[in-house]
Amino acid sequence: MLLLRRCRGLTRVLCPVPALRYVAINKCASFLLKLGSGGGEDQQYSQDPRWRPALAGLLAGTGAALAYGLHYHQVRRFAPALPVFSQEEVATHSSLEAGVWVTFRGSVYDITEFVAMHPGGNKILLAAGGALEPFWALYAVHSQDHVLDILSEYKVGELNPEDQMRQRAVEPSDPYSSDPQRHPVLRVNSRKPFNAEPPPELLGDSYITPSALFFTRNHLPVPRVDPASYRLRVEGLPRPLSLSLQELKSRFPKHTVTATLQCAGNRRSEMSAVRRVKGLDWGVAAIGNATWSGALLRDVLLAAGGGGPDAAARHARHVQFEGLDSDAAGTAYGASIPLRKALSEDGDVLLAYEMNGEDLPADHGYPLRVVAPGTVGARSVKWLGRVVVSGQESASHWQQSDYKGFSPATDWDTVDFRSAPAIQELPVQSAITQPADGAVLERGEATVRGYAWSGGGREVVRVDVSLDGGETWRVARLRGGEEEEEEEEEEGEGEAPPPPPGRAWAWKLWEVVAPLPPGVQEVEIVCKAVDDSYNTQPDSVAPIWNLRGVLSNAWHRVRVKVKGD
Amino acid sequence: MLLLRRCRGLTRVLCPVPALRYVAINKCASFLLKLGSGGGEDQQYSQDPRWRPALAGLLAGTGAALAYGLHYHQVRRFAPALPVFSQEEVATHSSLEAGVWVTFRGSVYDITEFVAMHPGGNKILLAAGGALEPFWALYAVHSQDHVLDILSEYKVGELNPEDQMRQRAVEPSDPYSSDPQRHPVLRVNSRKPFNAEPPPELLGDSYITPSALFFTRNHLPVPRVDPASYRLRVEGLPRPLSLSLQELKSRFPKHTVTATLQCAGNRRSEMSAVRRVKGLDWGVAAIGNATWSGALLRDVLLAAGGGGPDAAARHARHVQFEGLDSDAAGTAYGASIPLRKALSEDGDVLLAYEMNGEDLPADHGYPLRVVAPGTVGARSVKWLGRVVVSGQESASHWQQSDYKGFSPATDWDTVDFRSAPAIQELPVQSAITQPADGAVLERGEATVRGYAWSGGGREVVRVDVSLDGGETWRVARLRGGEEEEEEEEEEGEGEAPPPPPGRAWAWKLWEVVAPLPPGVQEVEIVCKAVDDSYNTQPDSVAPIWNLRGVLSNAWHRVRVKVKGD
Repeated sequence: MLLLRRCRGLTRVLCPVPALRYVAINKCASFLLKLGSGGGEDQQYSQDPRWRPALAGLLAGTGAALAYGLHYHQVRRFAPALPVFSQEEVATHSSLEAGVWVTFRGSVYDITEFVAMHPGGNKILLAAGGALEPFWALYAVHSQDHVLDILSEYKVGELNPEDQMRQRAVEPSDPYSSDPQRHPVLRVNSRKPFNAEPPPELLGDSYITPSALFFTRNHLPVPRVDPASYRLRVEGLPRPLSLSLQELKSRFPKHTVTATLQCAGNRRSEMSAVRRVKGLDWGVAAIGNATWSGALLRDVLLAAGGGGPDAAARHARHVQFEGLDSDAAGTAYGASIPLRKALSEDGDVLLAYEMNGEDLPADHGYPLRVVAPGTVGARSVKWLGRVVVSGQESASHWQQSDYKGFSPATDWDTVDFRSAPAIQELPVQSAITQPADGAVLERGEATVRGYAWSGGGREVVRVDVSLDGGETWRVARLRGGEEEEEEEEEEGEGEAPPPPPGRAWAWKLWEVVAPLPPGVQEVEIVCKAVDDSYNTQPDSVAPIWNLRGVLSNAWHRVRVKVKGD
Repeated sequence: MLLLRRCRGLTRVLCPVPALRYVAINKCASFLLKLGSGGGEDQQYSQDPRWRPALAGLLAGTGAALAYGLHYHQVRRFAPALPVFSQEEVATHSSLEAGVWVTFRGSVYDITEFVAMHPGGNKILLAAGGALEPFWALYAVHSQDHVLDILSEYKVGELNPEDQMRQRAVEPSDPYSSDPQRHPVLRVNSRKPFNAEPPPELLGDSYITPSALFFTRNHLPVPRVDPASYRLRVEGLPRPLSLSLQELKSRFPKHTVTATLQCAGNRRSEMSAVRRVKGLDWGVAAIGNATWSGALLRDVLLAAGGGGPDAAARHARHVQFEGLDSDAAGTAYGASIPLRKALSEDGDVLLAYEMNGEDLPADHGYPLRVVAPGTVGARSVKWLGRVVVSGQESASHWQQSDYKGFSPATDWDTVDFRSAPAIQELPVQSAITQPADGAVLERGEATVRGYAWSGGGREVVRVDVSLDGGETWRVARLRGGEEEEEEEEEEGEGEAPPPPPGRAWAWKLWEVVAPLPPGVQEVEIVCKAVDDSYNTQPDSVAPIWNLRGVLSNAWHRVRVKVKGD
């Protein structure tokens, strides 16, 4: 936050009134965050054309504009003298102490001051002393004019022509070139990495979400995995394992679970509407319900000596998962869940090799993924390569410095990621999938549909729907997995039991058919769900707003117009 | 709801406009509920002097007044002819089919039509064919003028003098005469049965609630139990047990848990303020945190053969608890919890014989009670006499037809108690214990304190506090059980671990010290908590209002005045 400190200094001079100064600093911070780019979920600024007017708005009327202008000018002072450096010289600037230099298209940049502002965090240091190209190839967000503008501020010289030639010879091909084909109906939030959700009205149509329509949240390129040579390594227990796909399928009973997975950022766009947040602008469809089959993680851990009297097992608290997807520096996607969840007989955590009765699709983790029911999607690691039982949570960026919830009072200047627990179980959630926001309805009866789900295996027991903005309510009819239960009945002991307590992993779809209020031109439809712990959704978005835009589970509101008579 | 149907008929004639008719019926229903009386938690109408103006308000301006007047007149037609009946004749009217007659102070009443309106439900039938006196002695709420007024409407005759004499001879003494002495600081919501809570500012003062200040929620008189002859019966498993207190203490390891218990009706008064509900008018202090010691229910059930391959054990789903407290008909207080919770190694369900290091006080279940951490207080049955493992939940009124949550759209005319699950785990909760509502604060810094807790062992991870009605927020400092952890540290392996995941049974106290907004005369202080599933409290009361006034966990709001300069 070096630059922020500088902004603060400047505004202290420029804005003698403390309150105004505070506004200026915050605007400045927001502005810098917007300008910054990086890995993870930052793509919305580049792909969303709205950032330009938003930026213009921010710049108008605050001291930040002036502060930034001064800063810009200050940096520009370096521009006139442009020496030529060798790659060897650049390479000596690969730490915060020695300065952080990078090259891009033949120019050399000293980005030391920018490191603290990089929304992707310290990952930027992976490029220190070398070329940016292989990293930017991974994160398409960087290929934007405004990113280049930022970079140009830090230019300190040129790379010598020999090293430029050498770099061009090894420029990587697009790491996303082997990504699979996707269904054209998906609404794409980011292509590289691929992040997309289905249209809500399709999502709400079927209890089991078709695999091709299931939301995809990739953090990195889809790895190509050869099933014949694939091995799952299980470590941190008395008997480490290395299992082929065939061994996983034959040594452990096949277990099938119907479970809903939801992205922590589902419905983030509603938070962005209150105040801009960092992350992909998901609608209401970053959630899906599928039938998953595989080995129980519990069975595999027990085979490796988990839960036993061994010292390592006794001190273990977490199960870390490592994906086979990795960035240019070889850092894999990673996450962890509590060991308690993994070993619980009621936990139903799968090492899944099937989705909806078929091999996992490439986008959903072929050949093997974790499915941790009741838990935020980010922990159900895809393309699973390694399982490590440990006393510590995963050290990955996504476990430590992302996917956590904060107070609306916490901003990027004050956030301490260690102060909040990693999201595991998600709170109760529901949303309207039909009608769409802005739809025009016939007078008379309206049909309202949606989904409802809660984390931790808590069953949704009621959904209330309002056709007048939350003044009065109706109880929706819940549509569970009846067909599926009938199948279970055939296999089972002649009973069609409800989900066992604490293991309601699947969502419920719901429906209300009710007359529209007479005489109105516009109606605000609202839904809210209640789970079997009687937790409910909060009424409004602003009080649960958080800088990362996760856990967006306020009442869902849809405004529709009613046709004139 | 016979009378309601009649009201509906009357208003249909009197109110040709459907909307107005609807209002009239609802007002009529509210009115009747207010007039009705019965067992359980109905005392607030009798003890709360506010019911009179509220009633007057209800009667003003609606068709209900007229409707009720007509009904009153109609019933009065029976009055002129008053035959004399024998007790034998009265006794033949002891069912809905034969009519429900009762006697009271020498008069005979046909209350058949009233049965459906009795807020205490079918329990009124226990008095059918006999005298009301022994029942009303149990439920002091009935000794009110307006209850007698209602009863007088149903008078059909006199009891003959011989039977009157005979009744007087057997009139029971006050079953509450052996209730213990209580701390004078408690705020009494009902004396018989005894229901009381401490002043909030005392509650928020100590992490461990002193036993004498711990809220008391009795449903019936406190039973006197002789510890020497006491036996706990454990049934429904292959090896039924009958355990003396000494056997419980010696055969099973002593297990200590610090756990918060909360009444389902805590903060009901806030719901009553929105719309009248049925139940005791609890403030924010029907919650407390104590250290409980006893045998693990799990250990006792395993000793009885629970969790084994036996057919009964395999089909068991619930553990029913029966108290030694009972009503005039001998019906004991009862409740149940899921067997899964009882058998879980992480469930920590106690058969507790100590509270805060001493024998249980009489009001808290001496000599033995259930403590089901993370679960609504109603399931932690006091004066425990019997444990029954079963395929069914407890058949008691309190499990089946009480302590359940409903939509704000559900009223006493439409409620189907089978449609909602019995409350087990409670939702996330927090409240302000200091300053009190209406307090006058000095200008400058304010100290705000309170408690926060969530059900199901979910740990409270954050409390947000607002000094401007919810516009802006601050993160409160959480005050856990540090002293206690230090003690554990001494006993344990040199570590002071946070509560294990999923076993955060104890509340957290919290504090914010912050400047009051300058220049204001009045401030609305608000708090809301977040648990480790990131569930949050809903913003407002009306959308979670329910006819029974349970699960009141909206943001807590306190209005204070600020002294002039």
